[in-house]
Amino acid sequence: MERVTVIKVGGKIVEEQETLMALLDSFAALPGHKVLVHGGGRSATKVAAQLGIESRMVEGRRITDAETLKVVTMVYGGLVNKQIVAGLQQRGVNALGLTGADMNVIRSQKRPVKEVDYGFVGDVKEVNADLLADLIGKGVVPVMAPLTHDGEGHLLNTNADTIAGETAKALAKHFDTTLVFCFEKKGVLACETDDESVIPVITRSDFARLVEEKVISGGMIPKVENSLQAVEAGVSRVIITRADAIGEPESGTTIR
Amino acid sequence: MERVTVIKVGGKIVEEQETLMALLDSFAALPGHKVLVHGGGRSATKVAAQLGIESRMVEGRRITDAETLKVVTMVYGGLVNKQIVAGLQQRGVNALGLTGADMNVIRSQKRPVKEVDYGFVGDVKEVNADLLADLIGKGVVPVMAPLTHDGEGHLLNTNADTIAGETAKALAKHFDTTLVFCFEKKGVLACETDDESVIPVITRSDFARLVEEKVISGGMIPKVENSLQAVEAGVSRVIITRADAIGEPESGTTIR
Repeated sequence: MERVTVIKVGGKIVEEQETLMALLDSFAALPGHKVLVHGGGRSATKVAAQLGIESRMVEGRRITDAETLKVVTMVYGGLVNKQIVAGLQQRGVNALGLTGADMNVIRSQKRPVKEVDYGFVGDVKEVNADLLADLIGKGVVPVMAPLTHDGEGHLLNTNADTIAGETAKALAKHFDTTLVFCFEKKGVLACETDDESVIPVITRSDFARLVEEKVISGGMIPKVENSLQAVEAGVSRVIITRADAIGEPESGTTIR
Repeated sequence: MERVTVIKVGGKIVEEQETLMALLDSFAALPGHKVLVHGGGRSATKVAAQLGIESRMVEGRRITDAETLKVVTMVYGGLVNKQIVAGLQQRGVNALGLTGADMNVIRSQKRPVKEVDYGFVGDVKEVNADLLADLIGKGVVPVMAPLTHDGEGHLLNTNADTIAGETAKALAKHFDTTLVFCFEKKGVLACETDDESVIPVITRSDFARLVEEKVISGGMIPKVENSLQAVEAGVSRVIITRADAIGEPESGTTIR
């Protein structure tokens, strides 16, 4: 089975010229089939502010009204995505920018209103990876923006971690799939204040113990939980690491 | 040889909800392989104004400085393109939004500065239609935004008529290709003031005569000239018609 690496990078890295260039260099240098999934929240907030639209966040998630949906469609699907694609083409990588609407790759449904009305935010229902896998096999490198569609003509703002996880799961039917989540630390740390205390491997049973011992807490709990679910759904391994270390996965935390 | 229809629609049609919906309906109803090329100038001007950026035009072409390039990347590559893609998916058309940077479909070079410095505007150098033709053969419907790239990491603003013409020429190696230019009249008119006086067919020799007789003048001269060049480069036929008549090409002017 051929291998593919799905790499998710947050907004911060792709939104500053210097870190973006470094990311594109190391991503281009990665051997084999690959997919890049990106955020873009800071740029969206900036463009929204310039257009006089206030950004409202609840637990780190953007409330997406009709005007905000236009902004994220412009920023994620246009500005950020196409700059990455052009930068990768410059580096000899045959990038193809996609939202979930393109080739119907990711269909979602508008999140039901409970305590919070998130507006035009989508929860993933279905990933259609056959055409995507075919293109990847031909050397195309998908670059995925955090947008999906509901099949009824509406784009929906969708969490980039979720896009990466669901895409990796769907690709696992076609490839030996590695999913890499980049964040600001080198991996999951055994000691919060020691950047070198990376836990090399976490399994389902380790996870239960580490949560109980409060080594893993806060926002790291859903990150590791999602990673374990991806592994249980067929992804070979999930790596949590820093963007500047995507070429050396052994330096991060491997979830399997 | 299988057939493909490349349809170019201007900005006006895709930027108003009512005309966009009508276009998507008639485009979705077209049988066979197809490609949609769109503009988006009015939306770009509007978003630029909201961002405090003045739009400067010379002979209908936008002067594209660095800030304006960001705007057209957002508007053409994001807002307009993805709304069309989502609308076509809703209608069962497996649309894929593309700029020329995606899969390196259209490479261009920055227009040299002569009397006018157009800024980040690209003249098409090369179309790579092999992957595109392959996708079209699998039922994918490309939706192309008027942006290209120079292979050195820069996106370039590119005339949508040119994108449509060059794409049709490149696809002519793979398909029996029809190129349709939509504009506000039903076709090339024999009498400017009579909307029903559509000239059904124009050949190279007709064109010379019609220009001499001043039946074809102004902006229609380059449109017909480009159409004739497309035909001479292998496109089977070019049709100039109104967007609401794309389903009945015989009502427009056929250039062959």
